[in-house]
Amino acid sequence: MIVSLKQSADPAAVLRALASRGLWVSQVEQGAGGAQCHYVIAPHSAAVKVDELAAIEGVSGVTTAKATHPLVERQGPVVDVGGAKIGAGSPAFICGPCSVESKEHVSLLARRLSALGVSFLRGGAFKPRTSPYSFQGHGVVALRWMREAADATGMRVVTEALSETDVPAVAEHADVVQIGSRNMHNYALLKAVGRAGRPALLKRGMAATLDEWLKAGEYLLSSGAPSVIFCERGIRGFDDATRNLLDLGAVALLVHVHRLPVIVDPSHGAGRRDLILPLGRAALAVGAAGLMIETHDDPPSALSDGPQAVPLEAMEGLLRELDASARAAVRRCEY
Amino acid sequence: MIVSLKQSADPAAVLRALASRGLWVSQVEQGAGGAQCHYVIAPHSAAVKVDELAAIEGVSGVTTAKATHPLVERQGPVVDVGGAKIGAGSPAFICGPCSVESKEHVSLLARRLSALGVSFLRGGAFKPRTSPYSFQGHGVVALRWMREAADATGMRVVTEALSETDVPAVAEHADVVQIGSRNMHNYALLKAVGRAGRPALLKRGMAATLDEWLKAGEYLLSSGAPSVIFCERGIRGFDDATRNLLDLGAVALLVHVHRLPVIVDPSHGAGRRDLILPLGRAALAVGAAGLMIETHDDPPSALSDGPQAVPLEAMEGLLRELDASARAAVRRCEY
Amino acid sequence: MIVSLKQSADPAAVLRALASRGLWVSQVEQGAGGAQCHYVIAPHSAAVKVDELAAIEGVSGVTTAKATHPLVERQGPVVDVGGAKIGAGSPAFICGPCSVESKEHVSLLARRLSALGVSFLRGGAFKPRTSPYSFQGHGVVALRWMREAADATGMRVVTEALSETDVPAVAEHADVVQIGSRNMHNYALLKAVGRAGRPALLKRGMAATLDEWLKAGEYLLSSGAPSVIFCERGIRGFDDATRNLLDLGAVALLVHVHRLPVIVDPSHGAGRRDLILPLGRAALAVGAAGLMIETHDDPPSALSDGPQAVPLEAMEGLLRELDASARAAVRRCEY
Amino acid sequence: MIVSLKQSADPAAVLRALASRGLWVSQVEQGAGGAQCHYVIAPHSAAVKVDELAAIEGVSGVTTAKATHPLVERQGPVVDVGGAKIGAGSPAFICGPCSVESKEHVSLLARRLSALGVSFLRGGAFKPRTSPYSFQGHGVVALRWMREAADATGMRVVTEALSETDVPAVAEHADVVQIGSRNMHNYALLKAVGRAGRPALLKRGMAATLDEWLKAGEYLLSSGAPSVIFCERGIRGFDDATRNLLDLGAVALLVHVHRLPVIVDPSHGAGRRDLILPLGRAALAVGAAGLMIETHDDPPSALSDGPQAVPLEAMEGLLRELDASARAAVRRCEY
Repeated sequence: MIVSLKQSADPAAVLRALASRGLWVSQVEQGAGGAQCHYVIAPHSAAVKVDELAAIEGVSGVTTAKATHPLVERQGPVVDVGGAKIGAGSPAFICGPCSVESKEHVSLLARRLSALGVSFLRGGAFKPRTSPYSFQGHGVVALRWMREAADATGMRVVTEALSETDVPAVAEHADVVQIGSRNMHNYALLKAVGRAGRPALLKRGMAATLDEWLKAGEYLLSSGAPSVIFCERGIRGFDDATRNLLDLGAVALLVHVHRLPVIVDPSHGAGRRDLILPLGRAALAVGAAGLMIETHDDPPSALSDGPQAVPLEAMEGLLRELDASARAAVRRCEY
Repeated sequence: MIVSLKQSADPAAVLRALASRGLWVSQVEQGAGGAQCHYVIAPHSAAVKVDELAAIEGVSGVTTAKATHPLVERQGPVVDVGGAKIGAGSPAFICGPCSVESKEHVSLLARRLSALGVSFLRGGAFKPRTSPYSFQGHGVVALRWMREAADATGMRVVTEALSETDVPAVAEHADVVQIGSRNMHNYALLKAVGRAGRPALLKRGMAATLDEWLKAGEYLLSSGAPSVIFCERGIRGFDDATRNLLDLGAVALLVHVHRLPVIVDPSHGAGRRDLILPLGRAALAVGAAGLMIETHDDPPSALSDGPQAVPLEAMEGLLRELDASARAAVRRCEY
Repeated sequence: MIVSLKQSADPAAVLRALASRGLWVSQVEQGAGGAQCHYVIAPHSAAVKVDELAAIEGVSGVTTAKATHPLVERQGPVVDVGGAKIGAGSPAFICGPCSVESKEHVSLLARRLSALGVSFLRGGAFKPRTSPYSFQGHGVVALRWMREAADATGMRVVTEALSETDVPAVAEHADVVQIGSRNMHNYALLKAVGRAGRPALLKRGMAATLDEWLKAGEYLLSSGAPSVIFCERGIRGFDDATRNLLDLGAVALLVHVHRLPVIVDPSHGAGRRDLILPLGRAALAVGAAGLMIETHDDPPSALSDGPQAVPLEAMEGLLRELDASARAAVRRCEY
Repeated sequence: MIVSLKQSADPAAVLRALASRGLWVSQVEQGAGGAQCHYVIAPHSAAVKVDELAAIEGVSGVTTAKATHPLVERQGPVVDVGGAKIGAGSPAFICGPCSVESKEHVSLLARRLSALGVSFLRGGAFKPRTSPYSFQGHGVVALRWMREAADATGMRVVTEALSETDVPAVAEHADVVQIGSRNMHNYALLKAVGRAGRPALLKRGMAATLDEWLKAGEYLLSSGAPSVIFCERGIRGFDDATRNLLDLGAVALLVHVHRLPVIVDPSHGAGRRDLILPLGRAALAVGAAGLMIETHDDPPSALSDGPQAVPLEAMEGLLRELDASARAAVRRCEY
């Protein structure tokens, strides 16, 4: 946003009027001979109405940049997943194992989780692994196992598509198609998932700006996805004391400024099982629509990411604590 | 931490036993001829007892690295500031203007804030500014104004020392001496503040690792500071949509693993007044001992950082909301 | 790498012996009762022989981590692309437009570039764009235009595959299949490109560690690619004064420690046409096997990335300067 | 920079005219009703003359931001240090131990280095160490040792001031006062060093933007320093394969756009002795005015940073190689 000044303006007075509305001036631009003066407003300024600024004494004009992700801006904060709402009030819990390991296994987990009130079953059939020599997931058969486990318990399935060629199979079995962090910039996959016509859960790329994330959402919506749920799972940091750097400021921005549904994944965010409760609470307090939490009945035998999985027997306590926090968080943003 | 295996061990079984305790193996080390095998445990693993690991079948030994900040590790989560406790239960609010502007001004703010139950008055007498041509603070006289305003209202003073030579004056007038983000690595200042014998509030450097932050605390304690309060205010990010990148994962780690008192500064964390409530809530939910919030009776006329200051008339509502959130956050970490 | 000490060792003497070989000890690990002492060697240490360390007095054993990208380690620094070598001595220049715009256009560029001694023609038929509303490339027809232009001039074609489904067409027309920065973690694409059996040029992801980059190369080789050329084009930085942050330290490491062929892309690295010469020189001086440079006969009319394109009429001077620098850089690494 | 359009302008034609000059448009700003249209030019654009842009058809006006570091912009690329020039042609080598260890030791190093043609002797009397328990330097006495060693050999002394109170002593003994990376934002120290009236060598902060770095230089010059030499030593990265992330793109920008003298420190840049030659070559090729290299006659016994020190007996070969590269780098920037 640029606020232009009249020749007759008192620049300091305009500056004060902008500051009073929470606007930072990142640059003062001046024409040769002082003919023109523009204030460039920094992106990290509070949201304000253009009309209000245009009416400030001494302001000759206000310009704004056109939204580059119009469909995302229009979507709104509530998403419907086969009748279950995300973003409508009580938090959505998306739980399950990192990898789907067997039919019996995912069925057991679904029964136990649904008994605890968890409505969304997550699990990896296709796993993006840094090394080609790591376990890559059981593939299509695991999709079927998840679908059956979910159907038997009334849960919805959230699972990742890694390859364009797998999208039809994933979309057939899943209620929500997940795009992993490593694929946020994979535009071919985004288009394929969009065409499949399912709600998508879009994890943020490891070093993606918010603008890039929103535009990746725009790829999904403009290709046919009915809705996008954003998921923050931590970005690349410089400190190995946590696995990733969970950016709850970005969540605040997407929720309160862009009015979008955001899920937070504290399992990947910290990589430490012992921080999932405090980070989960913080995520709900900041306005997240729900949490994605890796769980396992027997973490030591998990085929991937065991150390960050919450043991199934601890889930009841964890969810109770998180639910209590969520009820307490009224999530009003005005004061 | 390194877990060494016996020749006879089943490596996969040991791996499972480690995963079940929330430990990530970051590296598998092997001697020539397979004679030795070590598992190097990643720093982002859950905290565990060494004895428990040593007892795992197949483990021949466990080694750990000596704490490099022993005084910090010993301090504990509660700090006494002239009789007022930080970290003892209800959140500490540290509020006031970015810069102390006049005797009347800081006195007015102190009366209004203390009436709202705020116990700590913040304000800059010496301001670290990126440009030498920006307002640098009113200096020593502003320290006196703050002290008088605080004494008249029963508040404690938190203010920053920028220069070693100013430390004695700052320590004379302040209850807590603040070290700003830009000076976290300024060891001469840390030693001078330590020698002054006051509790210190240590902001994290813009790109400081947690280890560097803790060691900066060690400089303070080993030079004579009675206690250190850590303060997270956002690190340098790559996205200009927020002013800084608030790292609540680091707060979780310092609070729940290192058991230290941490204050969060959502004003600098986001730079956006409209995100202070959700980020403040998140900070309390994650376990912060309190919040530092910039406020001003007339943000447009603030001498610095006006756009992020919460108008005084909005503080009552903001604090009420934050207090409610804090009461709801039971801050239990086990489940 | 871990160096373990005998009970009888003088720890300080061993430390000195390690330092004298350029090794940093990142952690000193101690068993309970002092029974065991390990030195963990930091990754940013000089490369040394294990035998030499094992022979140091007081050392009881040395362990190392198994290479996690064995095929990449085995490849070597020279790659053959249809008879043209990359990494064999004189620098490879890979030049052409950001997007292939028309048959005539790419043919003109190929004639002009080959006359300047450029052997590799680059150009985008499929373009990864942050916004779904930006020009996405002319697709398959542009591949044919490039092939014809290259065949007419004896050049090799380097072009990007964005989608798994396009890989066969790209591999049919290209001599080298490029994986873009945004797709470095797109394992489905890496496997598809590997299966196509062409040399691959693998750009580094925006926030990829060197280990992740090397493992992405391992995906290519283990899926069937005959060779991988690595390409550094700048990672995500926090400063908008340059478009990206060109990491020539990473290039030095891949070239001199891992002995791999690395191409540097100074066009994306800086985003500024006026820094392509100094950064190009630096890249060759650090040991890069060649440069990828965007050029255009008429930058203002370029369909994408015009501002960083070098005008065709300036290429002759630029290449002459770069060639002179390259000849001067003897690229010996011992001294 | 903002380029404003006439109502009658053809926006696409103006865009092309900007691109042809290497300018990126980062934002298109539009007034309500389409009354105004501004193009905001991205910082990573090529440098151009305002007049030339104002003359483009359809452009109604061009504004620019006032330089926020006018003294730095005015300084120029050549700095005089007691008669020795930095930035005037042949590269300046600033060599010596990390810490000054004894009178004899620094005297030996000075004799050996000056015999190799090195004109600047570096060495730490005061050492900024992450831990309060590490060796902190021999202090004032080490300054005297350095001065004597330099005087006996005709060298200039470059050494760091850590504390405001030490600045007078450092300035008395040194020809150039160094500000370390950790103190780039320490404005009290910058002012004290400026007042001392010596040329300053200003290392870039670990996460400092170029604008912050230039403004720190402005602190020095506006406080009285006769000149500032900038020094890039690597910023904080996310990859532990190198000790720091050497940002040669920043060097290119300071040298070729801001026309400033920049020294590069490849010892800290990589932390690896085996990459000093290629990174040193790259630094000279990109336009650095010289190199700072840690050396030691007996690296194993170095009191700090031994692993990155180049053994004295290898310095001759290293300097010969670097000199040859430098002579070859004509450092013309136009082509």
